[in-house]
Amino acid sequence: MPEIAYYQDRFVEIDEPVIPIQERGHQFGDGIYEVIRVYEGRPFTMAEHMERLEKSAAAIRMELPYSPEEIERLSLEALNRSGITEAEIYLQVTRGIYKRQHQFPVPGASALSIVVKNARVVPEEKRESGVPVITTDDVRWKLCHIKSLNLLPNVMAKQEALEAGAHEALFVDDGIVKEGSSSNVFLVKDGTVKTYPATNSILHGITRRIAIDCARENDIPLKEEAFSLDELLEADEAFITSTTMEILSISSIDGRNLPDERPVTEKLFQAFQHKKK
Amino acid sequence: MPEIAYYQDRFVEIDEPVIPIQERGHQFGDGIYEVIRVYEGRPFTMAEHMERLEKSAAAIRMELPYSPEEIERLSLEALNRSGITEAEIYLQVTRGIYKRQHQFPVPGASALSIVVKNARVVPEEKRESGVPVITTDDVRWKLCHIKSLNLLPNVMAKQEALEAGAHEALFVDDGIVKEGSSSNVFLVKDGTVKTYPATNSILHGITRRIAIDCARENDIPLKEEAFSLDELLEADEAFITSTTMEILSISSIDGRNLPDERPVTEKLFQAFQHKKK
Repeated sequence: MPEIAYYQDRFVEIDEPVIPIQERGHQFGDGIYEVIRVYEGRPFTMAEHMERLEKSAAAIRMELPYSPEEIERLSLEALNRSGITEAEIYLQVTRGIYKRQHQFPVPGASALSIVVKNARVVPEEKRESGVPVITTDDVRWKLCHIKSLNLLPNVMAKQEALEAGAHEALFVDDGIVKEGSSSNVFLVKDGTVKTYPATNSILHGITRRIAIDCARENDIPLKEEAFSLDELLEADEAFITSTTMEILSISSIDGRNLPDERPVTEKLFQAFQHKKK
Repeated sequence: MPEIAYYQDRFVEIDEPVIPIQERGHQFGDGIYEVIRVYEGRPFTMAEHMERLEKSAAAIRMELPYSPEEIERLSLEALNRSGITEAEIYLQVTRGIYKRQHQFPVPGASALSIVVKNARVVPEEKRESGVPVITTDDVRWKLCHIKSLNLLPNVMAKQEALEAGAHEALFVDDGIVKEGSSSNVFLVKDGTVKTYPATNSILHGITRRIAIDCARENDIPLKEEAFSLDELLEADEAFITSTTMEILSISSIDGRNLPDERPVTEKLFQAFQHKKK
């Protein structure tokens, strides 16, 4: 199935040069993005992704180039053109093309990019075994709730994880576990689930929110509360959540294994699968 | 005089679309940059800018696509083609074109951008009056010594300054004045100059370093030492430094005026002018 791309006002080839050097995404990371999973041809939680896109745009004081409804319509058109049924829709909005200067360009310059491609699916054996993670110093800025293109620390952390044979790197700030480089993180201890609260320090993951719903709907006690790396190492279970990873067990942290039994994570994973239908 | 641009392996038009959506600069701000001032056809402190480019690349573990000598040669060729004598050379290196994933693409993908354009020159009246600045919360990441493309907080701060009728926004972290959104900051009190030390918290500005040299060569006492916003408000003089602003007096901070007499800043500015010859 072909990958489909869109830039500014037209459908383009995914590898087509469409952006000049002086584009705000390219020169400042001045933009925001979303990744939406498509299951069996149906975008999952599209409304929530569009709402977060609007929130991110407002947080960086950027006008979207089209209404959310029009962006959604274009996304669905891209999806249809691709013919892919297990897809990821990548949406990005930058402050557009303008001569390089820090301050905002004229209003109305912002530019939409869309890419539709085959979904990355966690291999079954990884889903069963869980994945190793490492921890890394949280060097990020203070506004991690904005889903911005300023992703260099996330890039560095993910690379560090892969080189260590791990699947994800967790950002730890002053002993507190915040989230992963592209995921939120949860622990389970004595039957209670914990995850960092939705402050400006973490991305308010949509899969995170669904996992919380799944816990509440299944009468599993859950606290949105900071926890330390020590607590995580002593957890009964731990997992990460993201649009592409869904709910994924952690097998080890910095080489220290967690228990093999994961009844709570398993329950939440099954509950999540039901939501996809 | 024409602006000249270069991307990857060829000279291009400045507004030519040369970059696909899936470029690491465009999607992650995954890259670094330099701005070099050209006076009367001669690039100023080119060697230091190339050295910093190498340091920034090493800090984000990115290989440069060409040797520093070759990047310098291409920059000079771009400058020659432009015919501009009072110019800015903008150099940017990203981790290149690759399908979107956080981890690094294959080695050797990194891509060079060059733009040569007319220098932005501070108007004479601003240079004489000094410029108003505001202060803003330092929300940036912990590795501000890397001249990276993750510039969203700088963009927001500069915009905030301009909307307040100011020229620059100074980042203040827990009461301590770090630097401007695109400049370093100095104060003068009782004949002694102070500026924040060259740690990972600030950019190690080349004009900052030259200003320090100018102070030492003119027997002006100087300390690389953190100072508070209160100290800055009580300063006898204050100024910002950058490649394009050179050494520029601050007239007011958050609307509170500094004294009109600026003997030390004036001396440093004159010393800087001599270095340009």
